[in-house]
Amino acid sequence: MDDARDPQDEPRVRRHKGGFRWDAVEVLRYKDEGSAPFRDVTRQVLFEGTGLPVQLRYFEVAPGGWTTLERHEHVHAVMVIRGSGRCLVGDRAYDLALNDLVSVPPMTWHQFQAAKDEPLGFLCVVTAERDRPQLPGAEEAPVIAKPLRK
Amino acid sequence: MDDARDPQDEPRVRRHKGGFRWDAVEVLRYKDEGSAPFRDVTRQVLFEGTGLPVQLRYFEVAPGGWTTLERHEHVHAVMVIRGSGRCLVGDRAYDLALNDLVSVPPMTWHQFQAAKDEPLGFLCVVTAERDRPQLPGAEEAPVIAKPLRK
Repeated sequence: MDDARDPQDEPRVRRHKGGFRWDAVEVLRYKDEGSAPFRDVTRQVLFEGTGLPVQLRYFEVAPGGWTTLERHEHVHAVMVIRGSGRCLVGDRAYDLALNDLVSVPPMTWHQFQAAKDEPLGFLCVVTAERDRPQLPGAEEAPVIAKPLRK
Repeated sequence: MDDARDPQDEPRVRRHKGGFRWDAVEVLRYKDEGSAPFRDVTRQVLFEGTGLPVQLRYFEVAPGGWTTLERHEHVHAVMVIRGSGRCLVGDRAYDLALNDLVSVPPMTWHQFQAAKDEPLGFLCVVTAERDRPQLPGAEEAPVIAKPLRK
């Protein structure tokens, strides 16, 4: 059946079209090219506004790709829903498998990387109002033990 | 590898143990028995606190089960991550499949029901501070076209 639309709002039900694409959800750049180091990442905003003080986003990192190594005051609540990979949180790297949960505390260096042979897709909850990410400078290199990207 | 724990916080990575159960996540009653009509529903709080003004919960409705038909001022942002079923939102019922997205606006009657032969598991984002659900009285029966439960 087709979906009812609220005039000022999201449709009440938005279908998964397969391949982690949804009706009425645009596939966005992760960030502007050149604004920060990353490789092969897309972003989709699944929920925002509508009485919620957060956004729920879906990020997908292609096989071998990685997100920007960064930190900020706002926290991340993450759940893997596709594939596998690794994450760096603070001074440790963790293997990630389907449905694993990741909490990124404030001002904690973090990065996500897909496996070589499959994507890493994850949900990420953030506050709607949030500070801009910081990128590591040369002085942070010693404290970031093992960045996942080359 | 084992997980690092933040002293005052959630572990940074909590593993999916299989079967939609996680390390350090308790399986809770959906509601107290007798407090409202429902059948065969569990609740797990995946993320709360830690700088987020919301909770992210995982609800699982066993085959043939259903949640309470209710409404409230706070909204729900829902994503199906296991099985299939149906939902009622306002005056319409919708079939639900894996990864479908559901938005429940304020003061909108809603209910979730699992398929007969498989569970319905879904994530639900709500504000941490929220009003109590209202249950339908006899006077609402005419406006709720087709409640999913018997």
